[in-house]
Amino acid sequence: METNSDMKKNKEQFLGLDCGGTNIKIALVDSEGEILKSAIEPISYKQSPQKVLKNITSCVQHFMDKNCTSKIKGLGIGVAAEVDQKNGIILNATNLGWRNVPIADFFTKELGIPINVENDSHCAAWGSYCLDAKKKCSTLICLTLGTGVGGGIIIGGKLYRGPNGLAGYIGHMSISYSGRVCRCGSIGCLESMVGAWALSQTVKERCSKNSFPILRKLLRIDKQFKITPELIAEAAINGDCDCQKLWNETGKYLGIALGSLANIFNPEKIILCGGISKAGVLFLKPMLDTFKKQVFKTIFQYTEVSISKYTDKIGVVGAALLFMDVIYER
Amino acid sequence: METNSDMKKNKEQFLGLDCGGTNIKIALVDSEGEILKSAIEPISYKQSPQKVLKNITSCVQHFMDKNCTSKIKGLGIGVAAEVDQKNGIILNATNLGWRNVPIADFFTKELGIPINVENDSHCAAWGSYCLDAKKKCSTLICLTLGTGVGGGIIIGGKLYRGPNGLAGYIGHMSISYSGRVCRCGSIGCLESMVGAWALSQTVKERCSKNSFPILRKLLRIDKQFKITPELIAEAAINGDCDCQKLWNETGKYLGIALGSLANIFNPEKIILCGGISKAGVLFLKPMLDTFKKQVFKTIFQYTEVSISKYTDKIGVVGAALLFMDVIYER
Repeated sequence: METNSDMKKNKEQFLGLDCGGTNIKIALVDSEGEILKSAIEPISYKQSPQKVLKNITSCVQHFMDKNCTSKIKGLGIGVAAEVDQKNGIILNATNLGWRNVPIADFFTKELGIPINVENDSHCAAWGSYCLDAKKKCSTLICLTLGTGVGGGIIIGGKLYRGPNGLAGYIGHMSISYSGRVCRCGSIGCLESMVGAWALSQTVKERCSKNSFPILRKLLRIDKQFKITPELIAEAAINGDCDCQKLWNETGKYLGIALGSLANIFNPEKIILCGGISKAGVLFLKPMLDTFKKQVFKTIFQYTEVSISKYTDKIGVVGAALLFMDVIYER
Repeated sequence: METNSDMKKNKEQFLGLDCGGTNIKIALVDSEGEILKSAIEPISYKQSPQKVLKNITSCVQHFMDKNCTSKIKGLGIGVAAEVDQKNGIILNATNLGWRNVPIADFFTKELGIPINVENDSHCAAWGSYCLDAKKKCSTLICLTLGTGVGGGIIIGGKLYRGPNGLAGYIGHMSISYSGRVCRCGSIGCLESMVGAWALSQTVKERCSKNSFPILRKLLRIDKQFKITPELIAEAAINGDCDCQKLWNETGKYLGIALGSLANIFNPEKIILCGGISKAGVLFLKPMLDTFKKQVFKTIFQYTEVSISKYTDKIGVVGAALLFMDVIYER
């Protein structure tokens, strides 16, 4: 039976904002995570934090003027940063060089609505929990495979942020104590072996005139000479054995990490999302084979591993729905 | 202010039982984890599960007759096994070859008191949370360094068992995708590199007439010719460079694992316990150095790593106090 509170909640609308490296996604979302309206705008982070934030709030204001007829409850923001979620502060955004930016205050002042700021991978995990899992499990691990590898953990139907809001750096779990030095400076992080940065590094290390024949051909055609997961996938599909090997290894490394995570968390679901997850067909089999070898049999039977069906929107929807979760928690 | 319920709880007494490989520990414990009486009895698992359990219940009955004047609330049991805690069943005890043994029913029938059965590392984690941390944190990771490596996770002041009670197998987190095959069959598990079994394996692999001079001497004196962590520690302290190297590596491997765990959980405390933790002086520095390199700076400042001061009793006290936690949860 639908209670009064449920009915009220169902009519409410929330804004989500996913701040990516090259563009921002804005969406008007209902309490079920359905996107009612959305927009993508290009963004540059070359100016000062204040100017960049001013540009972003202008985009959001414009979106609201155009699309939001009824009053919205507030805005959830996802950023690739260490976030003090309680106080709405970006503590450290390595990629942008930002430190201690009070983003929630800025947005509230500019837009006049309540704000909740979260790490972007936490948003994706929550989005995946709401959309892929339909909240029909209690414990879920989400891995975001992009340039790096992000993570989010749902425990008991709640986002697990950790005591200081810094939990979930699954990409910086080491899978090789003698492995590659990661961008973060640590050794053998999952992120140093999997993800767009890692793939590109490995190609550079192994590339010679006798290797990667099809990939090198594609790179010559694409004048930008940029090694992307999309190109590596295309070359693999077209028969480049070195690229196929790369995807096999990606699967193996992921399988190792998933085995560890399942042994630690005994989760009901592990969900992969992000750009690289779209190449699933190339790494899914070696990943699942390795996972099965690494995880305890008793745990294996309870763990469902899958790729998100909503990878392009879980970030922005998750940001909006995490805002909703936070206000209903208060 | 002490409430009526607190006063009642404070007067209550609980039994703990820690079933080890060669002996069992029994303790009468108050609600603060203080041991009022305790006993250690040798045990053999060579007979059928029924006969072994009969022997154990006889020991507990004898202990109760001798030591328990007032009525006790119940008995908490820790066993090295995958446990269905809700139904009090040992699902799988690999070391004993036991499967699906309804241990709680058996104990209740024999002793006439309520029973709670848990994985022994879960008990140690809870014991460490109560005694070492005095419950003054919300998130704690405990690693039990024995023959293998066990684990227990406290989140939000509660033992995290996972949806099927199988969480916490931290020893089976892989720290090397191309590493040693573990006793569990997986590759590169922490347990395959750290712990008594792993140390003994490494010595066997590396031992020659030119290596481990002092250890080999000690082994000749000790006619049992058994490579134990105690002997390896003694040899290291007496200047055996190969043994010192082994402890340095142990520290490094542990540091890698702790870095991953801290990046994933953002815990307030990580506590090591178990026999091997007593050799802390030999591996603590390389462990903490590696940990510092592997963990995010922001997380590092919030994470306290230490060795349990109560390693010999946290298993049995944890078992008793977990019983208490379970009945007050109901």
